[in-house]
Amino acid sequence: MTAELETMPRYKLTIEYDGAPFFGWQVQDTLPSVQGALEAAVKAMTGADLRVHGAGRTDAGVHARGQVAHVDIEKQFPPGRFRDGLNAHLRPHPIAVLEAEIVPDTFEARFSAVKRHYRYRIVNTRANLALDVGHAWRVPRRLDAEAMHAAAQRLLGKHDFTTFRDTECQAKSPEKTLDQLDVMRDGREITIVTSARSFLHSQVRSMVGSLVWVGEGRWTADDLSAALEARNRAACGIVAPPDGLYLVKVDY
Amino acid sequence: MTAELETMPRYKLTIEYDGAPFFGWQVQDTLPSVQGALEAAVKAMTGADLRVHGAGRTDAGVHARGQVAHVDIEKQFPPGRFRDGLNAHLRPHPIAVLEAEIVPDTFEARFSAVKRHYRYRIVNTRANLALDVGHAWRVPRRLDAEAMHAAAQRLLGKHDFTTFRDTECQAKSPEKTLDQLDVMRDGREITIVTSARSFLHSQVRSMVGSLVWVGEGRWTADDLSAALEARNRAACGIVAPPDGLYLVKVDY
Repeated sequence: MTAELETMPRYKLTIEYDGAPFFGWQVQDTLPSVQGALEAAVKAMTGADLRVHGAGRTDAGVHARGQVAHVDIEKQFPPGRFRDGLNAHLRPHPIAVLEAEIVPDTFEARFSAVKRHYRYRIVNTRANLALDVGHAWRVPRRLDAEAMHAAAQRLLGKHDFTTFRDTECQAKSPEKTLDQLDVMRDGREITIVTSARSFLHSQVRSMVGSLVWVGEGRWTADDLSAALEARNRAACGIVAPPDGLYLVKVDY
Repeated sequence: MTAELETMPRYKLTIEYDGAPFFGWQVQDTLPSVQGALEAAVKAMTGADLRVHGAGRTDAGVHARGQVAHVDIEKQFPPGRFRDGLNAHLRPHPIAVLEAEIVPDTFEARFSAVKRHYRYRIVNTRANLALDVGHAWRVPRRLDAEAMHAAAQRLLGKHDFTTFRDTECQAKSPEKTLDQLDVMRDGREITIVTSARSFLHSQVRSMVGSLVWVGEGRWTADDLSAALEARNRAACGIVAPPDGLYLVKVDY
């Protein structure tokens, strides 16, 4: 069996995608998914039906600049050739394998992750989005990014994030530890950067939507704290659309 | 006639667009153009067939973050309302009026411009483009951005740019003064920033394509100088695709 293990290397893939045409990361019947497209490319290269395990199951429309996945294949390709071959088979999907590397079979894309980094892009403008359509959330009302950043700090640390969790979330516990939630303005663009070991379903979009209420002056920082403490999904502000959300990096 | 002049204010428009769906800025019969879409929006607001004069006639597929245009309209709208109304009528085109302002009627978008700024985006990767598809040029061979930058400096100043000019260019003289041509790498992304009072047709894309030859090691800086001195279109390297080119700003 040792020989077989040696011929079944595990590959770590770093992946970029535009989430717009997909019903999310996860394979769902015949609906287009990022995982499904990757598994089809793996099958085209290896002839086998193999599971591609992702670090994060991004929702429909959510993008990635640095999703990570692993897959075990029977044939050992040089990593660069495996990457190029997958990319050739992925066309014309807006999915790119940025890097492929052979990793020990103790590596699990999902369970070995120690931190996930997301970015959310808001374009704060009354004008239409032209170049950024589908890649950012357009918020027409002037947002106070400094107030958003100050309020965001109330969410750092270990909390019960039930308020900011989709009702369909399957995580066992609503407790998560939020390490970073920064809000920065550069001209008309507002970027929200957040990191944690893991996030609940829709947590980033729920926090961003609530922060926009703070930025519009509809909520104070105290209102945000009260929403967190309510531990009640109904206390959440709005849920930001997927267009502006990017999984940028996963640390191991 | 003074009264009429007072009721025909000139508006300066700052415009963003994704060039992909258009056959360029300029109206051409029934083909979709940025100018045509803007003129249709102006007509929807004013009822009149009016010319929208642009600062630069960007080619098919070329984008703008800060194109400038002017238009004279009979009815005086508050600038913010004119901007919002144009944007409402421009949907779903990927064109946005970022700003509208009333300017003296001596202002001419094209002829009053003292400097034009363009940016060109290259993604230097063997992987597919996913999020940047249509918005950058993918160059798979590793480029030496420092060599590109060093060679680019040979093109600064006043020259006969015939080599870097489309054969269909209608400018009276091939002489132009290039003020800036910087090449910078940030990870896998290479940005080329250039400015001049004005450019010849396809000049930026011709310079970028030739610089890519330098970056690939196919040309030395001396080869680039020789191409410039040849004053011959046939001496040009390749012409970079429109996808990566952005008109970012026009100075007055």
